[in-house]
Formats: sequence, structure tokens, C-alpha cells
Amino acid sequence: MPKNDVSMSVVRRLPRYLRYLEELEKKGVCKISSKELAESMGLTASQVRQDFNHFGGFGLQGYGYSVSSLKDKIIGILGVNKKTKCILVGAGNLGRALLNIKFDKLGFDLIGVFDVDKEIVGKKVSSFTILDYSDIEEFCLNNNPVLAVITTPSSVVESIATKLAALGIKAFWNFSHFDLSKKFPDLNVENVHLNDSLITLSYLIKESMD
Amino acid sequence: MPKNDVSMSVVRRLPRYLRYLEELEKKGVCKISSKELAESMGLTASQVRQDFNHFGGFGLQGYGYSVSSLKDKIIGILGVNKKTKCILVGAGNLGRALLNIKFDKLGFDLIGVFDVDKEIVGKKVSSFTILDYSDIEEFCLNNNPVLAVITTPSSVVESIATKLAALGIKAFWNFSHFDLSKKFPDLNVENVHLNDSLITLSYLIKESMD
Repeated sequence: MPKNDVSMSVVRRLPRYLRYLEELEKKGVCKISSKELAESMGLTASQVRQDFNHFGGFGLQGYGYSVSSLKDKIIGILGVNKKTKCILVGAGNLGRALLNIKFDKLGFDLIGVFDVDKEIVGKKVSSFTILDYSDIEEFCLNNNPVLAVITTPSSVVESIATKLAALGIKAFWNFSHFDLSKKFPDLNVENVHLNDSLITLSYLIKESMD
Repeated sequence: MPKNDVSMSVVRRLPRYLRYLEELEKKGVCKISSKELAESMGLTASQVRQDFNHFGGFGLQGYGYSVSSLKDKIIGILGVNKKTKCILVGAGNLGRALLNIKFDKLGFDLIGVFDVDKEIVGKKVSSFTILDYSDIEEFCLNNNPVLAVITTPSSVVESIATKLAALGIKAFWNFSHFDLSKKFPDLNVENVHLNDSLITLSYLIKESMD
């Protein structure tokens, strides 16, 4: 739970607001009401206003929000204007797919991509040269990354994360089934459980067909 | 929202229960109390009991749950014992990474993997031969897949999804930023917004360092 007592469900809506506002800005829209914003996002106007009130509120009743200033405020709240150093461990298909993400637009500076496979170490993928996992300790001591993206097989995640936590890593973006939040309760962990997402669809399909 | 009025937050916890129960079964544990289950998942015992009560409740007060029968019930509720036909569109790095998922253990039978890139059409990835996207209409008419996994660039998602919906696809597992739920309110859509997940970490890191 974040420090300022904003619930995670509010925090998780902020990236969506940001995306819509960026689209509006591209279209040249300067001002938007909470009603319009709510409709385009499938929320209620009151929910939108409540969400923004958590952060002091951004608009005047009846006047609407300035798209660019609302966008800038959300960027500041989310910290996506920062350049937090991060590394990625595991340059298989999933790891490589993630290299397409624009880390620099999402608050991060991806400074190293590691793998154990000698066949790919030294090769270039996107704009990254794959580094040898056996050099990760020295790399972390020299560069102090804060976030590690973990895209290795689940079986090795615990040992990798333990090593990285000892090297000063403060947050994990975890794609494995290994429960890092339980092992490292003091670190920030965001899990992407793809299997759980697919199972949820299984449920929804089953319910809709019953 | 699923038909039986169970909230999505309950539904989203079920895959986690399932994972824990499978682990317990592997370890030879036969029985577990709601308290133990809650502790291992970072929930309260009352929350666990409430979750299971949504589905009629599975245990006797003070006796605990049978691991295997609880597991089987959750499997039935989630429909992961079904073999719903699905296809995957977009065999780039992300699509290939998803081919490692054991679809058959999660309720699905992956029957076709499609791409537009003539260089990879006909090639084998994992156990799948990449099919030509231009054949997808005939394939769907002959095989009636229910779910489409969409791992193409966002720019083409709308046209692909429109075509697939017209061909009878009932659900999308969407990895793009294009908002398929808004376009197809009657279909089941599960979005995996990787950027939003990374932005959430940006926020959590910023808050923890302030």
C-alpha cells in the first residue's frame, strides 16, 4: 500500500487516465469535463472526481480539466518523468518482447539486459547488447539499478532475486509464478501472472456460455 | 461482471488459491484450515471463508478443507478442465513467449498460431507451425475457435478484432493498448496492459523513496 493511503485501485486507474489524456492531446483536445473523461473510460463522473480528489483535485466544478495540465500532474504523481535505473534478467522470448517497451516513457532507464545463455551473451537485441549474468554483481555495484525485471524460468527466480536484493535492488517486475512479494515484503513487487489472466478468461467464457 | 454476481476481485483470487492448492498437493498436504491458507496467501481467514462462501462454501467449520477436493471444485468453477478452442494472432517475441504457456492446463486448446510475416509463416515455433493470417477466415469457419490471443502491434488490433468477432470469436486476450472492451462490450475481454503494470511500479518506487 502506498504511503499516502491512496488505494491501489485508484493508483491502477491513473495509467489509464494518462493514456486517454495523451490521446486527447494528440487529437488537439484542450479541455475535458469529468463526465466526458468518465464516459470515455467506462467510469462515472463522480468516480473520476473522487480519484482526482485523492491528489488534491485538479479542476474547478463546471469548468472541466485542462488536458495538458491534468496529464502533467498525473505524470508527476506516477513518477513517469523520472529515470529510475533498471535491469532485465532473462533475454528469452518474453524478455525480448519487453525490450520493445518504451521504458524511458514509463519512468525507467533500462541500463542492462542479462542472460546465462552463452549463445546470446554479447549479441545485440533491439538496441541492447545481452550481458553475461555472471557479471551482474559487479554491474549492480557499479551502476546501482533500482528495479529488476525478472523474465527467467520460475525455478531460478528465488536465487536470482535473493542475490539482487542483497545487491540493493529495491523493486521487482516479476513475470514468474514464484511469489516474490512474500519473500521480500519490504520491496516493491509487481507481478504479471499471465496464467491467472488466462484462467480468468476461462471463467468468464464458461459463465457467458452457461 | 460474471453472471452469478461474484465480484471480479473474488474471481481473480481463485487462480491464486488454485496455485497454492496445487503446491500443497505436490507436497503431500491433504488438509488445510482457512487460517493456514489465508496466511500462506497474505489474506485473512475470514476473507478466505467469504470467498468460498460465494460458491456455496467448501468446508466444515473447525475441520478445514480437503486440499484435493477444494482444488477440484475451484478447477470446475474456473472451467480450466474445459478445452475451449483458441487461436493466437501475432507470432513475434511476445506471441512466441506465450506459446510456452500450458494452455491445456488453463482451460484452452490452442489450435492455430497466425502471423502476416511470410518469413515465419510455415516455420515451426515450439510445437506450432505458424499459419498465414490470410487463411484465418477459412480456419475460423472450419474450426470455430472461441478465444483469440492478440499479440500484434496495437495499430492493427481494431481491424483484426473486428474481423475475428464477425467470424464468431467470443473472447479476446488482448496485449495491445487498443481498448477492445469498449469496442466489443458483449464479448469477454481480458487486457494485459504491461505498460500500466510498469507505471504502477514507477509510482510505488517513487512513494517508497519519498
